[in-house]
Amino acid sequence: MIRKNRGILTVVSGFSGSGKGTIMKELMKKYSERYALSISATTRAPRPGECDGVEYFFRTREEFERMIAEDALIEYAQFVGNYYGTPRTYVEEQLNAGKDVILEIEIQGALKVKKKFPDTLLLFVSPPSAGELKNRLVGRGTETMEVIDSRLARAVEEAEGIEEYDYLVINDDLEECVEEVNHIIRNEHYRVSRNREVIERMRKELRDFSKK
Amino acid sequence: MIRKNRGILTVVSGFSGSGKGTIMKELMKKYSERYALSISATTRAPRPGECDGVEYFFRTREEFERMIAEDALIEYAQFVGNYYGTPRTYVEEQLNAGKDVILEIEIQGALKVKKKFPDTLLLFVSPPSAGELKNRLVGRGTETMEVIDSRLARAVEEAEGIEEYDYLVINDDLEECVEEVNHIIRNEHYRVSRNREVIERMRKELRDFSKK
Repeated sequence: MIRKNRGILTVVSGFSGSGKGTIMKELMKKYSERYALSISATTRAPRPGECDGVEYFFRTREEFERMIAEDALIEYAQFVGNYYGTPRTYVEEQLNAGKDVILEIEIQGALKVKKKFPDTLLLFVSPPSAGELKNRLVGRGTETMEVIDSRLARAVEEAEGIEEYDYLVINDDLEECVEEVNHIIRNEHYRVSRNREVIERMRKELRDFSKK
Repeated sequence: MIRKNRGILTVVSGFSGSGKGTIMKELMKKYSERYALSISATTRAPRPGECDGVEYFFRTREEFERMIAEDALIEYAQFVGNYYGTPRTYVEEQLNAGKDVILEIEIQGALKVKKKFPDTLLLFVSPPSAGELKNRLVGRGTETMEVIDSRLARAVEEAEGIEEYDYLVINDDLEECVEEVNHIIRNEHYRVSRNREVIERMRKELRDFSKK
């Protein structure tokens, strides 16, 4: 019975270059019956190859602002003049269906979600070391110093927020990492704090037996 | 690097009849390189077949009280006129060696350990339902009503403390349950709160890179 719980809302953040996108893709491929990946809405234009409803829901500024007004977004933010946000309906439907829903968003969004839904599980993905992260950010030697500096500065900033998260997942081996994330989310269903009803029911039944 | 952490102290409690003893035995058999099971000291006499250092360390009352005086026990309590306690040295040695140490004790002991070592992970093992628990407590029809009543009363009491625990593990299938416990303890190593040093080091290195 404990397994028929409502799904768990999970936010995955991490350094750019941590490989979190690949991990999520693999997780969905391997356990599509268990997880649902939330798709963000945005007002930015699709890049070549991006499709509406796959990478993002592409919306006009007017449509997006209507979603805000109708409280149809769990969280939203503006970056470089564009809106990004998490549509509520899909997330709630999937959670009610017992699926664990994953949002791949950065820390500001993560904290907004956590505030609204205190039960949210927060995972932070990191490469195995700072040196490795630097290598990935520096890239293949084709980037300007300016780009590299801004990426490093961003990583320094991102690192400041790690304490807000529940788990730190180290991505040194993709397959292992996918399994780690899978087990972390699965185990979360066994948290006492997520099973208060089950416990209360068992308690009541035991008391009833005991009275007989 | 994250995996070279100190071991995690884990307390496993549960209803009598939950099968927690069997789960722990299987866990040790399967993953002896990863876990160490703490053996309690007691002043009660060995039962037929029990060996010193296997089921318990059997000690005289005088020896036990010397251990108390020397602070050689993590926790101790008296039941029905006998002392029971957890020797400190073995636990600390194993934790320092990176092993996750498991104590199989009841709630009063669990809470004492948690108070002394706030990082302790607390697991509670339960049969899949109150009905199933009742069946196990009632036994094979050979018990007196008095024995059954006292077992049920004890279960009601034990159930009161479940909220103090971190995880509720449902024992419906032994093999699955062993794996669940294994994953819960393993994942605990990835908790942000258990990786503050790793995070701080990474942060410092990133800041240094960023300055260059």
